Amino acid sequence: MSRLFLVGTGPGDSALIAPKALAAIAASSDLVAYGLYLELLGEVCDGKVHHDLPLGEEIGRARLALDLAASGKTTALISSGDIGIYAMATLVFELLDQQLQGKESHPEWLQVEIEVVPGISAMQAGASRVGALLGHDFCTVSLSDLLTPWETIEKRIHSAGAGDFVVSFYNPVSRKRDWQLNRARDILLQYRPASTPVLLGRQLTRADESITITRLDQLDASAVDMFTLVSVGNSESRHIVNGDKHWVYTPRGYRKKLI
Amino acid sequence: MSRLFLVGTGPGDSALIAPKALAAIAASSDLVAYGLYLELLGEVCDGKVHHDLPLGEEIGRARLALDLAASGKTTALISSGDIGIYAMATLVFELLDQQLQGKESHPEWLQVEIEVVPGISAMQAGASRVGALLGHDFCTVSLSDLLTPWETIEKRIHSAGAGDFVVSFYNPVSRKRDWQLNRARDILLQYRPASTPVLLGRQLTRADESITITRLDQLDASAVDMFTLVSVGNSESRHIVNGDKHWVYTPRGYRKKLI
Repeated sequence: MSRLFLVGTGPGDSALIAPKALAAIAASSDLVAYGLYLELLGEVCDGKVHHDLPLGEEIGRARLALDLAASGKTTALISSGDIGIYAMATLVFELLDQQLQGKESHPEWLQVEIEVVPGISAMQAGASRVGALLGHDFCTVSLSDLLTPWETIEKRIHSAGAGDFVVSFYNPVSRKRDWQLNRARDILLQYRPASTPVLLGRQLTRADESITITRLDQLDASAVDMFTLVSVGNSESRHIVNGDKHWVYTPRGYRKKLI
Repeated sequence: MSRLFLVGTGPGDSALIAPKALAAIAASSDLVAYGLYLELLGEVCDGKVHHDLPLGEEIGRARLALDLAASGKTTALISSGDIGIYAMATLVFELLDQQLQGKESHPEWLQVEIEVVPGISAMQAGASRVGALLGHDFCTVSLSDLLTPWETIEKRIHSAGAGDFVVSFYNPVSRKRDWQLNRARDILLQYRPASTPVLLGRQLTRADESITITRLDQLDASAVDMFTLVSVGNSESRHIVNGDKHWVYTPRGYRKKLI
């Protein structure tokens, strides 16, 4: 049987990796992943063939995973976070779709049995580290305009603002993209208070984690890098301080029952 | 030390529970949760004091968890899914906030050390079971108007439509609420094609899981109950069929690079 696991390994902390993800990796002979992800996984990767490709080679990585699996090698394609959220899973299905439409020449891909194993995504790790920022309706927006036109992204940010969703920005900046996050901030400021709490979560749940709680009007791209999740509260999100402990939560609306 | 863990145990499959969640439960003497959740957890709950309260008693459950922890009993408040997403975590912080404002009379709550352990949410389990439905920007909307005015919910659905977000509806129906989901469908039909793929995932990852892929114009509340997640694709989401296998994915925009 020809098998491909698409595996999300969570935000970084090994205690947040689902046993199902480890089992999928253990069952595989070949792993397709950035080297960095595998270091976090540890022993379960020992003895596996590790296939790496440079950052940016996403299509090559998805093709390689399908090719390996189709050749009979049980393969795991691995992302941190949830592989179904801004990660590699969708690209594998996009390639399958192309094959089904006759635009690829890999009928063997269609024989591969695919299983997707979800993982805890950065927004969840971030929310949990500061309380309950995702406590009510929320959305995610990727600020990468490599594949999505900036006009589409901007329209989404306006919609997120108009709908008063908590917003998590993925891919907030990169070495070549530095102005998008500030533009996103300015759009959201049209819809919600300047004091709206914002979480900057860098290297969440990892040894070098750093967490900053700021205000929407003080959010600046210079404080953010590609390892940072940026989550912006909705108009009701609250930043509370209990001694030296800071929390951010988004109420569900129980207040009227509490008072 | 006075400790309270807020723990999400994922969608149901025990292989999707993070080790950190099990460790938090193991470290606790007292568990506050629906009985049903604990059955799924198995042995780790043996020997713990189990506190249950009727469905609907969310505030009472959060108070009880804070009271138990403040009395010196290490306590775990447990939800399925992610306790930070439409679940109990935010209510605990709302109570703390009330105490900080002097609107409660429980200064002992402020001494409790709180740790939140995130879990895999239903939308992630659903997306993984059908492919990669959450592959690009998405949002969540709770259709429960118990605590949020319906006007606010309707505005959010319009925003989700205008922004072309993949939309996951939590609390899509209940015994007393049956029209909201069809109204939500009609709103989204103003923004995206009738053929937009929709996932109905009931009891996801559990023994009695059932998964249906339908079209937006065929979505009907009569096919949905309170154990069902409803996720609606965006205007580019694709339902593909490979033999007897059905997949749904939302492209990230690589197509222009693929062709």
